[in-house]
Amino acid sequence: MSMHPLFATRTSRMKASEIRELLKLLDQPGIISFAGGIPDPALFPAQAFSQAFQAALGPDSQAQALQYSVSEGYAPLREWLAQHMRQIGVGCDSDNILITSGSQQALDYLGKLFLSPGDTALVGWPTYLGALAAFNAYEPRFDRLSLNGNRGAAEYEAAAGDEAVKFAYLSPDFSNPTGETVDLRGRESLLDLADDLNCAIIEDGAYQALRYDGDAIPPILALELARKGSIEACRTIYCGSFSKTLSPGLRVGWVVAAKPVISQLVLMKQAADLHSATINQMAVHQVAQACFDTHIPKVRHAYSARRDAMLTALDQHMPDGVEWTKPEGGMFVWVTLPNDLEGSDLLARALETVKVAFVPGQAFFPDGSGANTIRLSFSNSDEATIREGIRRLGEVLRA
Amino acid sequence: MSMHPLFATRTSRMKASEIRELLKLLDQPGIISFAGGIPDPALFPAQAFSQAFQAALGPDSQAQALQYSVSEGYAPLREWLAQHMRQIGVGCDSDNILITSGSQQALDYLGKLFLSPGDTALVGWPTYLGALAAFNAYEPRFDRLSLNGNRGAAEYEAAAGDEAVKFAYLSPDFSNPTGETVDLRGRESLLDLADDLNCAIIEDGAYQALRYDGDAIPPILALELARKGSIEACRTIYCGSFSKTLSPGLRVGWVVAAKPVISQLVLMKQAADLHSATINQMAVHQVAQACFDTHIPKVRHAYSARRDAMLTALDQHMPDGVEWTKPEGGMFVWVTLPNDLEGSDLLARALETVKVAFVPGQAFFPDGSGANTIRLSFSNSDEATIREGIRRLGEVLRA
Repeated sequence: MSMHPLFATRTSRMKASEIRELLKLLDQPGIISFAGGIPDPALFPAQAFSQAFQAALGPDSQAQALQYSVSEGYAPLREWLAQHMRQIGVGCDSDNILITSGSQQALDYLGKLFLSPGDTALVGWPTYLGALAAFNAYEPRFDRLSLNGNRGAAEYEAAAGDEAVKFAYLSPDFSNPTGETVDLRGRESLLDLADDLNCAIIEDGAYQALRYDGDAIPPILALELARKGSIEACRTIYCGSFSKTLSPGLRVGWVVAAKPVISQLVLMKQAADLHSATINQMAVHQVAQACFDTHIPKVRHAYSARRDAMLTALDQHMPDGVEWTKPEGGMFVWVTLPNDLEGSDLLARALETVKVAFVPGQAFFPDGSGANTIRLSFSNSDEATIREGIRRLGEVLRA
Repeated sequence: MSMHPLFATRTSRMKASEIRELLKLLDQPGIISFAGGIPDPALFPAQAFSQAFQAALGPDSQAQALQYSVSEGYAPLREWLAQHMRQIGVGCDSDNILITSGSQQALDYLGKLFLSPGDTALVGWPTYLGALAAFNAYEPRFDRLSLNGNRGAAEYEAAAGDEAVKFAYLSPDFSNPTGETVDLRGRESLLDLADDLNCAIIEDGAYQALRYDGDAIPPILALELARKGSIEACRTIYCGSFSKTLSPGLRVGWVVAAKPVISQLVLMKQAADLHSATINQMAVHQVAQACFDTHIPKVRHAYSARRDAMLTALDQHMPDGVEWTKPEGGMFVWVTLPNDLEGSDLLARALETVKVAFVPGQAFFPDGSGANTIRLSFSNSDEATIREGIRRLGEVLRA
């Protein structure tokens, strides 16, 4: 028998993620991989985590560490995060915070919160592949978010037809996949648009802490707060993550929003997985408290040198007609190839001939465009490897 | 502004869980609580977990423990689970297993996999409240699963109208909330019904390992396997959990099913939270391997004595007209009060006058019936406390 005829209609939109499939390539010896957007494990504060897990499993707290806990999350971690958010301009308290199992789970829950089939979600073209995958489960219509003001609310609404525009999703700092940052004017114009559309904004702050140069731009939620006076009046929902700063494997992220949004998400989390792992929240809290402020500069220092190595090597080895972004932070450089070249063809050739991996850009476009783009990650290779990999890539491109 | 008008239709079905709200009562001093279905933390193998987390964070595996990992789960844990499932009669291999963040997440994903709005889910009347909450997010119609054969497939199909019956959900061993077990005949007749309806069966094995007396009955999946020869031909999907045996706070559960079902669930998990926490899977694997077989008898021994204490005390203290189940395992006794008594009224009085907590049964019925029922958990109180709590409850009932 086949179970497929029993599956819900949403499953027809669930396809294997190229990124996740490509992660398997990393196991092959000799491959230089710019594919997965994964942090360098040498930068994990493993010693601090070892101490934190031991402390959590000590006699005073082991019962709590291994027991069920509340859906909203471990209270001391929520307190720490409220303080952290205040430091980046978002005045809030711990009741404005929900702990999630990574910010990927926040995207899933926000899709579940807002989207009925046919509702419109505005996203970048390209945008984070994992956001498209998370939202797809709720069968939305995707429309292209433009931040240069050349589409007004009426135009978005007309395109949405009988259903509503529910939210605009974006990662404003050093986004995945392009590495680009939305400037202050773009953020302010998005707030205007969202007010006109009466829709939510989902601000993905996954890379927010990883700025290597240039001036920090306030989070969209901070800008809205400055306009409206209180987070309770804000439509922006901020998603944060420890994956790029402390450890992705522990699956600890968070959502910051007005309390009625958090309350609804808490109910959703109760029903979906009860709560995120107790001991992981306790360990992340202890490590964040002990060394977040001293650890982040080390991470920035390492990744900044890798970004520089990649940009210099691209300058040196890319043939004419190839263009790329100059990210001020994050993990990615986005490369646009000449129109007649396809990223997926280049990947096949690069793997076969010079053992270099990356992600073809097409998967990041909801409409399947962008065939001539590729995403390069510089976070998990040392500078010499980056130089060699880009040199090889230039060789293939010239061939 | 209010964000509520932007919420998806499904949110209208998401209500606060009485069980989770009641957990907060446990913090009040002096309360004897039979409310939450939570394990006794004194029985957690905390020392073994402490060693396991230390080992995972040792120099050879710390990079893996803190890094992203694959969505299907940690391979050695999947291997261990395949062997565990074979021991309880379910021939499978590790490709038939997905690791989830607790079996609650498995229920959420299975709702997401099968249910489009209006599809029918067959459930017990009463059934596990968390299953109703998980499925509710996908806006199904619930119908009452009858295992005594007095409703045939045609009747279920007629009631389902234009939409399909997608699955029957049940917890066949010492179920939450009733503590009752489905006998061999009931299991076989469910398999007949599911074949007639061409629907899936979701078998919730959360309490499966906690049998205190009586003969073990094979899992429904094992019975189907015996009929059909291979798990690939089976429609039963088994959900397991370490929450009742090793630790709930680590959020590690699993799903066992035919490979095409697992593949679809892996895609769903990729999109929803990437993967369950890596280090937790490594720690659970190490502890399960080191002491699952020696630890479970200790848990059974402790809970068995508590069940006996509760059943004896009920005999002694309950007035005429009160009836209760005699569970052979698990954590719960289900009490039926005289028709004119309401569980919620009794709870209010019991809390106020004698400081005893439990869960009113009505919330476990999708149709809001069962007002005269209550659920008592014996897992997290010692025998003396159980005797005193039941004595007090008898006092209130007599008043």
